[in-house]
Amino acid sequence: MTRRIEIVEVGPRDGLQNEAVVLSVEERLDFIRRLEACGARRIEAVSFVNPRRVPQMAGAEEIMAALPREPGRSRIGLVLNLRGWERLRATSCDEANVVVCASDAFGLRNQGATVEQQLEAMHAVAADRAARGGPPLSLTVSVAFGCPFEGEVPLERVVSIVREGARAGVPEIALADTIGVADPWAVRRRMEAARQAAPDARIRLHFHDTRNTGLANAAAAVEAGADVLDASCGGIGGCPFAPAATGNIATEDLVYMLERGGFETGLDLDALIATGRWIAARLGRPAGSALARAGGFPRPGASAGQAA
Amino acid sequence: MTRRIEIVEVGPRDGLQNEAVVLSVEERLDFIRRLEACGARRIEAVSFVNPRRVPQMAGAEEIMAALPREPGRSRIGLVLNLRGWERLRATSCDEANVVVCASDAFGLRNQGATVEQQLEAMHAVAADRAARGGPPLSLTVSVAFGCPFEGEVPLERVVSIVREGARAGVPEIALADTIGVADPWAVRRRMEAARQAAPDARIRLHFHDTRNTGLANAAAAVEAGADVLDASCGGIGGCPFAPAATGNIATEDLVYMLERGGFETGLDLDALIATGRWIAARLGRPAGSALARAGGFPRPGASAGQAA
Repeated sequence: MTRRIEIVEVGPRDGLQNEAVVLSVEERLDFIRRLEACGARRIEAVSFVNPRRVPQMAGAEEIMAALPREPGRSRIGLVLNLRGWERLRATSCDEANVVVCASDAFGLRNQGATVEQQLEAMHAVAADRAARGGPPLSLTVSVAFGCPFEGEVPLERVVSIVREGARAGVPEIALADTIGVADPWAVRRRMEAARQAAPDARIRLHFHDTRNTGLANAAAAVEAGADVLDASCGGIGGCPFAPAATGNIATEDLVYMLERGGFETGLDLDALIATGRWIAARLGRPAGSALARAGGFPRPGASAGQAA
Repeated sequence: MTRRIEIVEVGPRDGLQNEAVVLSVEERLDFIRRLEACGARRIEAVSFVNPRRVPQMAGAEEIMAALPREPGRSRIGLVLNLRGWERLRATSCDEANVVVCASDAFGLRNQGATVEQQLEAMHAVAADRAARGGPPLSLTVSVAFGCPFEGEVPLERVVSIVREGARAGVPEIALADTIGVADPWAVRRRMEAARQAAPDARIRLHFHDTRNTGLANAAAAVEAGADVLDASCGGIGGCPFAPAATGNIATEDLVYMLERGGFETGLDLDALIATGRWIAARLGRPAGSALARAGGFPRPGASAGQAA
């Protein structure tokens, strides 16, 4: 039997959030619907953060109002605290992804909160859900492989955050290489440590391709037993021509690698390539995926070629 | 003890050969010397092919005349047949790399020879060396993971070429993903098959990053026991903005991944990044490596950062 790898499409959230161009609610809805037509079943669709701080993510309620619940589909909303969770609960979001940064310097700069304060917020959300109900939670541990300000992020700190997630009963915990510094061997070590700290949780992985190691890290995660990976159609989330570009791994590149490797993703590669090109055009730049440039595995009779 | 991974620098040959800009002999010598200053011990420096067919590689004899033999350094020349081998033997080349394509369609188009004819040429070179002496040989099996014209390349064909290499007594055999279609699981399977077919040979791997899987394939090769990998400083060998760009994996990206993963390469990452930028400037384009854009692992106190 073919092993299935679940890909959580994060283009509409982590991708668009980090682009200079701000798309309209209608364009973002169009993107989400096109991704679902490619076969995406879980999409990080919106973010319940302050629209003054992140204008790219404004209008989460409007987007969700246009996406009534559908069996077999999950639209995920990102929340950082109780305020975001309250907003999410009033929408048709199917899941809430709570983010906790693994470094104080990063947390203070990006969310105005220390690791400790973010853990308190996560527990508050989990307690509110336990008391009043609401969609299931997941936890993303960001900068889990390195921090742009502090450099090395100790394994122990990541493990202690994962342990708090397990204590709060979160069923899925993601280790996120937010700035694209991880290597395949670190992925394996941190995954194993996370599994031991949260033996009942599913471990999800989230990679950026900043240093070209994104797919190597994804392959290592799959080898180490990960069944869920984040990716962003078109590799959006960081202009490929900007210094220190920090796009997510491109969904179409990941699907190419996994399907060639004999895994099943449930996604249509040609449709993803087309959608990646479409969103890139909306953002006024070429698609950030290799597959958009090179195309899939060659079909006999093609004409390109060059020496060894 | 730290495991050492040997990187064969192929920028001066496979890199420059596939660039539109033709560099002078002096510029190519400068590139080779800069790479050696970065710590490169084995460099594919020249190609003894027809300069009318590959003007980028003209002047192999002049380049080698300026590079007298040095202990601990190996300058490799590429040859396709006895004519190239004769030219190489008259120079200070330390090794000869013989290329055999794993597909007739590719071989006829790029070298004007079928697989069978290329194998005959390889055996003729090995026989001449056995009779008259000369530097050691290696064999590169190109398009070993897929062909732009034929599509799938059967494992059995690759194995039979590797077996011929072993029969000729070639001590190092490379599997080359010339068009960047491999995936990590194919790498492992083909490496294992090659090892069985040539148990006395070292297996080397050669990847292109055309579909963004280059480093994933390199990591898989290292995990499967490969101790030698090809890479090209600056990721040259295919413009990153051209359709179907087919650059080699960038040496600096590979070194970043391996050194972060705890392996030893003997190469200076900062010097490689600088050299990658230098050669890219000579070619009139940005460096093709991620490290040239993003830099290495962040040092505490850096200023860049963004949300999860």
